[in-house]
Amino acid sequence: MNFRLVFKICGRLLMVEAAAMLLPLLVALLYGESPRPFLYSIVIIAAVGFILSQLPSENHFFIREGFFTVGMIWVLMGLAGSLPFFYSGYFTSFIDCVFESFSGFTTTGATILTDVEVLPRGILFWRSLTHWIGGIGVLALSLALLPSLGARSQYLTRAETPGPVVSKLTPKQSRSSIILYAIYCTLTLLEIIALLIAGMPLYDAVLHTFSTAGTGGFSSMNLSIGAYGNPVFEMIIAVFILLFSINFSIYYLLICRRFREIWKSDELRFFLTVVVLATVAVSLNIRHLYDGLGEAFRYGFFQVVSIISTTGFCTDNFVLWPEFSQMLLVLLMLCGACAGSTGGGMKCSRILLLLRCIRRDIHQVLHPRSVVVVKLDGKGVDEDTLRSVLIFSSSYLLITLIAALLISLDNFSFTTSFTAALTCVSNTGPGLALVGPHGNFHAFSSLSKVVLSLCMVIGRLEILPILVLFSRNAWKRA
Amino acid sequence: MNFRLVFKICGRLLMVEAAAMLLPLLVALLYGESPRPFLYSIVIIAAVGFILSQLPSENHFFIREGFFTVGMIWVLMGLAGSLPFFYSGYFTSFIDCVFESFSGFTTTGATILTDVEVLPRGILFWRSLTHWIGGIGVLALSLALLPSLGARSQYLTRAETPGPVVSKLTPKQSRSSIILYAIYCTLTLLEIIALLIAGMPLYDAVLHTFSTAGTGGFSSMNLSIGAYGNPVFEMIIAVFILLFSINFSIYYLLICRRFREIWKSDELRFFLTVVVLATVAVSLNIRHLYDGLGEAFRYGFFQVVSIISTTGFCTDNFVLWPEFSQMLLVLLMLCGACAGSTGGGMKCSRILLLLRCIRRDIHQVLHPRSVVVVKLDGKGVDEDTLRSVLIFSSSYLLITLIAALLISLDNFSFTTSFTAALTCVSNTGPGLALVGPHGNFHAFSSLSKVVLSLCMVIGRLEILPILVLFSRNAWKRA
Repeated sequence: MNFRLVFKICGRLLMVEAAAMLLPLLVALLYGESPRPFLYSIVIIAAVGFILSQLPSENHFFIREGFFTVGMIWVLMGLAGSLPFFYSGYFTSFIDCVFESFSGFTTTGATILTDVEVLPRGILFWRSLTHWIGGIGVLALSLALLPSLGARSQYLTRAETPGPVVSKLTPKQSRSSIILYAIYCTLTLLEIIALLIAGMPLYDAVLHTFSTAGTGGFSSMNLSIGAYGNPVFEMIIAVFILLFSINFSIYYLLICRRFREIWKSDELRFFLTVVVLATVAVSLNIRHLYDGLGEAFRYGFFQVVSIISTTGFCTDNFVLWPEFSQMLLVLLMLCGACAGSTGGGMKCSRILLLLRCIRRDIHQVLHPRSVVVVKLDGKGVDEDTLRSVLIFSSSYLLITLIAALLISLDNFSFTTSFTAALTCVSNTGPGLALVGPHGNFHAFSSLSKVVLSLCMVIGRLEILPILVLFSRNAWKRA
Repeated sequence: MNFRLVFKICGRLLMVEAAAMLLPLLVALLYGESPRPFLYSIVIIAAVGFILSQLPSENHFFIREGFFTVGMIWVLMGLAGSLPFFYSGYFTSFIDCVFESFSGFTTTGATILTDVEVLPRGILFWRSLTHWIGGIGVLALSLALLPSLGARSQYLTRAETPGPVVSKLTPKQSRSSIILYAIYCTLTLLEIIALLIAGMPLYDAVLHTFSTAGTGGFSSMNLSIGAYGNPVFEMIIAVFILLFSINFSIYYLLICRRFREIWKSDELRFFLTVVVLATVAVSLNIRHLYDGLGEAFRYGFFQVVSIISTTGFCTDNFVLWPEFSQMLLVLLMLCGACAGSTGGGMKCSRILLLLRCIRRDIHQVLHPRSVVVVKLDGKGVDEDTLRSVLIFSSSYLLITLIAALLISLDNFSFTTSFTAALTCVSNTGPGLALVGPHGNFHAFSSLSKVVLSLCMVIGRLEILPILVLFSRNAWKRA
């Protein structure tokens, strides 16, 4: 392992993070709040980052360095991101700060705060900004900001891009990443403008847009989006959630007017079908709780979209809904958004491939001599990809269950432990029971908070990069 | 599909089932109870069986017929087995009878009865006998009783033998099956004798031995084994549960004095390690509820063994235990016993292979050019087997979740719905909350009971044979 290069890259990223903290610093100054939490953090992070970035290193960088770097970057940036929370004095322990920061960067949106509204505006701004940064992936940032890494950076993408199949937008990696940011920034701007036109204050609009863009879910309100009680806000946010949770390559195809290929996207159709069916099922299931089917649809649609995208905004306390709707939301959080989006979960394309593998198995029992290729978007998927999808699915569920077991040491109910683990692994935010929309993760022990923080990074980086960090072999010198 | 031959085989098996009902008929007569439920059932089943067995048929029998037959046999025998319950008049609906019968033949042991002790002894005897029949697999019976099928029957084994790798005991199938029964019957006899010596009444000893042999879990007592409050009974049953939940080929190796191969069995070591670790964890976790660590160990050990073997006997109401112990029991029921035993669940060997696949993935990130073969018992496992293990694991969990969703329409708690689905798919019996050791499945709707019955057969036959039954293609004439 080429540790020096790994930490050199991490150092550069930490400097970027320090620079990003200038924004909340500005917000804090604007609102007349103490700039100290950010000043301290910026100085420390920039200093550490600078020292690491000056490490002399050789140039060899292979897959293993790629995976290791990605895992390390997220852990270090998460730790560094917790400093402003720590210096703010609003958090009871450093573990809590780390939990909140990991929850931000991994775009989970689970919080240990019992009252969000008492926090300074600068801190809340940083909290949502971590979603925005996390959303596109620290790596995509690194691709644009560290062009000096050149060709080597493609190993990073392989480890980080969400989803089973990396379909490059354009052959040139750096051009791809520029297109990606352009789309991301454009959508972000559009949402801010839409919310402003609808009448949301600028600060709230920016914060909720950051959380939407990263499909995170942090809000500046205790009741999340439900605090506004404004159907127009809800509809705008729901639409943008959908836009941020589909594969970004769809936008590239849209720009190139390759509409036929968009239509051929199995994952997009699967995702939209699930959204429609789940919305209908939930709306019908909760209609007796609301003033007519229209109202039920309003709440049902928002919640389905918010959960399947793994954003986690809420407009009502869905733990009071019938059990069927709750169970369905749990399944949606497991399913997750499309690959190549900012969403989490297992990803629709994996679920689709898994279902097609099962269908193939049935077919092969009935026609043992036939050779069937599993297809996605009309193209055959090779067996290696299928195998990694299958390993991923099984280990995803296994990790969730093991995490639930560790958390259950806190002796909260089965529902609380299980959904807390699942919502963190899938980067959603709210779960059921104690960790429902009006609940939080405050009551968990430090051990559970560490386990859940790890779950978030494991889910966000799709397992392997974090498992590699835990491998004894990875820490051996080459 | 060669339907005629399929139904011809099913017909023969139904006649065997009718013959098996002579035993509970005898018990009913001995205890002076009405023989009518059995007389009616025997006449109907024997008649239908005879008619089906007389179907003229061609001889071709391939994998697809094998899978189809296995699925069909279990469904038909389950339906036929519900007739005595139906005619007994102690069940409120036919669906309830079917649930109880499926639960018996699949060796699940989940019951819809709120009070077991009021039932006639003949009916309870039949209920436990279905476990014994189900345990070794209707197929294994068919192999011995229908030698006329000859070589064709090997396709049946491939579909039915639990576990990922079928390691034949001896090259000749029919000799294998005779050895299998001999072991099964010997262990059954030994357990009855042991329980008698310990002082259990003959009737109870036979019933509980049947339920142990099939790793089923039906008891003649409302409080299950806990009703006796006798540590000697508990220890004898726990030991025999362990004996019935390890791979039966181990006994063959034992007979042949091939001790080194037994020692090399990864699955056995994994299974025993999990049992020991889980027992220690549960005992420590529940020690404050009992009179010292010794008592805690007594209850902890029995429950761990009973659940991981997917038997489901209980000596105490474990839903009152700390959440950690409950969550651990849920994980054990998912894990299940060894392949090639009468136990259910995912099977230890599959979990082991899954873990080794993950380890290989990590290794390949660190050493991309290396070729690593996943091994079991020192032998390389081919990629096809690994793929089917991975597909199995993912679909097992997927089916559990979908079943939980359907059941949640009954609006019972998340814990109840989830563990009810899991305990049925894994053929265990008790779950948590409403379906805990002192609970039952009575309150569920008919839809849920049908879904759960299906889950039991799907779990017992390891998914594919039942999915094949649902495939439109399977029902097309060749």
